[in-house]
Amino acid sequence: MIYLDNAATTRPDAECLKRAEIYNSEKFFNPSALYRYGIDAFGALKDAKNAILTCMGLSSSVYEVIFTSGGTESDNAAVFCSVKRGSFLTDKGEHAAIFQCFNELKNRGNTVNFTDLNKDGSVNAEKLLDFAYSNRVDFVSIMHVNNETGAINDVNYIAKKLKGINPDTVFHTDAVQSFGKIPYEFSQDIDMISVSGHKINALKGVGALIKKRKLPFSPLIFGGGQENGLRSGTENLFGVKVMEFCCCKKYENIRENFEKVSLLKEFVKNNIDKDDIKILSSENSSPYILCLSATGLKGEVIMHALEEYGIVVGNGSACSSRHKYSRVIEACGYKNAVLDGVLRVSFSADNTLDEVTEFTEKLNLVVKKFKRIMK
Amino acid sequence: MIYLDNAATTRPDAECLKRAEIYNSEKFFNPSALYRYGIDAFGALKDAKNAILTCMGLSSSVYEVIFTSGGTESDNAAVFCSVKRGSFLTDKGEHAAIFQCFNELKNRGNTVNFTDLNKDGSVNAEKLLDFAYSNRVDFVSIMHVNNETGAINDVNYIAKKLKGINPDTVFHTDAVQSFGKIPYEFSQDIDMISVSGHKINALKGVGALIKKRKLPFSPLIFGGGQENGLRSGTENLFGVKVMEFCCCKKYENIRENFEKVSLLKEFVKNNIDKDDIKILSSENSSPYILCLSATGLKGEVIMHALEEYGIVVGNGSACSSRHKYSRVIEACGYKNAVLDGVLRVSFSADNTLDEVTEFTEKLNLVVKKFKRIMK
Repeated sequence: MIYLDNAATTRPDAECLKRAEIYNSEKFFNPSALYRYGIDAFGALKDAKNAILTCMGLSSSVYEVIFTSGGTESDNAAVFCSVKRGSFLTDKGEHAAIFQCFNELKNRGNTVNFTDLNKDGSVNAEKLLDFAYSNRVDFVSIMHVNNETGAINDVNYIAKKLKGINPDTVFHTDAVQSFGKIPYEFSQDIDMISVSGHKINALKGVGALIKKRKLPFSPLIFGGGQENGLRSGTENLFGVKVMEFCCCKKYENIRENFEKVSLLKEFVKNNIDKDDIKILSSENSSPYILCLSATGLKGEVIMHALEEYGIVVGNGSACSSRHKYSRVIEACGYKNAVLDGVLRVSFSADNTLDEVTEFTEKLNLVVKKFKRIMK
Repeated sequence: MIYLDNAATTRPDAECLKRAEIYNSEKFFNPSALYRYGIDAFGALKDAKNAILTCMGLSSSVYEVIFTSGGTESDNAAVFCSVKRGSFLTDKGEHAAIFQCFNELKNRGNTVNFTDLNKDGSVNAEKLLDFAYSNRVDFVSIMHVNNETGAINDVNYIAKKLKGINPDTVFHTDAVQSFGKIPYEFSQDIDMISVSGHKINALKGVGALIKKRKLPFSPLIFGGGQENGLRSGTENLFGVKVMEFCCCKKYENIRENFEKVSLLKEFVKNNIDKDDIKILSSENSSPYILCLSATGLKGEVIMHALEEYGIVVGNGSACSSRHKYSRVIEACGYKNAVLDGVLRVSFSADNTLDEVTEFTEKLNLVVKKFKRIMK
């Protein structure tokens, strides 16, 4: 099988799983228990937090890590737990985990605004800042890498400008698709960062919200007071350690992997049949994501045809795959013929040139076949 | 090591882990993906829901399973997501995952009431029902088995009476300590049930809220619309399958295990030095939990002394272990000398008579030693 849907989820790293297995056997203890084994487990949890901050180049005196059940919970916590009421600003390209939270904010009587996108799926920063100049904004969430088009938002720049306008604005970024992938040092203008385990070959059901220690924050989930009182529930130490080990591995190889997947993406871009297949991702998008459209055809049909060859690609975000059109690609300004044909190809550093060669050939073949049928 | 803190967490079942491993290797796909592998993963998730309902004797036409990140999230969802405003009733013996949610309900301007406990930690059902006769109650949460004393509440009886008073009252039970352990068939007067994976030898970070399909429910966590729109976030299929397999194993052996741990608990009760150690759990409490107090001594000190012999017991709930006294044992009406000395011994069907014999001897020895020192 050739798996090219790594933005949806990734194959868990066998080596990291193996290393963490001990937390399901000898070291299975509850990190909140007060005997030595519990205290050791708590220490292992703390080590994971420090390791993740170090990988990301974030100071542990400024930032703290709250482990969550994944990117979606992290996003929910960021949106609901810091600014309690007011004016909330985001963009039309956000993942459902932010987008639907903003809809809920609106239901709860807050002011919410969604900034337009550029053609490549990045936020129109000019419009965003214009809005912030003329309107009071309490909370802003802008994703780092768009999960459908791969567009990269320069969140440091945006956050800096927003803080210049109003230093009290809280800035959050959903960095699920950049974590461990895009070499980027978040500045201290960023108040909160969401990351996920299963997009970096760790397990589903684990993620983190990284927040500035000073930022006021009330829990989304109440209970025994774990995670420094900010997120209750018995800590998932096994999942956390797999995430820590995968994170370290990704950051150790981040530039090498970046170069490698860049070549894979370039190969596909250079070798697909451009008469039939449109490239929606921009030149400077994440090398891990390539958004294409077989204009006039149905993306889903092509996806299934590729499956027959053992090739797995996505059609838009797995999290919104039950809708007809991608809300995000629509917000990029494309019409129905393009929207119909959307395919998302997303790479991992484990993919090979042979695999993408095979994929490209089969994609061209399948598209040509369907085009012929439609004539 | 002799592990007798199974109410805090349990050692993951190697066999069930092994069976579920395939969901981290060949079958690692995102259950929301629309290609065959994703659809198969979604099917495996659905199978897990049906298996859990079947084990518990609940009809899948009446109840649905929402997978969560654990018992705490399940409790939060039950409290916050069904009745949105009104009068909420619980008892003083609840786990922090319910208790702190009720405090938060109060902060948000709702009416909350905490019913008194009986001496054994069970809810005073008479007082609870008296309250419900004279006050409008919209939501009630009563745990099935108390996690500190093991007291069993007859939630079917309580729910039936409450529905008799007001059929619109929503009834939830936190069944984390009874799930897979206490043979009990929940009646249809129960609207929601919280269960957890890691208390039945599955993994931390997985649980479920089982709810009546008809019950109105808005999400706690918004996003891609997983779990039938009720709980977003990429489904943790590996964790879910481990939970399914462990659940089936527990329910297959539920009566046999119940008898086995009953003998272990009886042995300890019969052989501890009753001059120095008080039994706080009642006769009809869960056989899995035995609450003791070495009155006049410090439970924590005894716990550490037992650790030196390789014996692990708890002192109250791991989730509230950073407080001085157990809020729950205090609510049972005990004074400081008893509260100081609290120890929680919690069994698993994997514990042996040899282990509990060793534990009982060492406990008697340690308590005697400290009593002598204190004279």
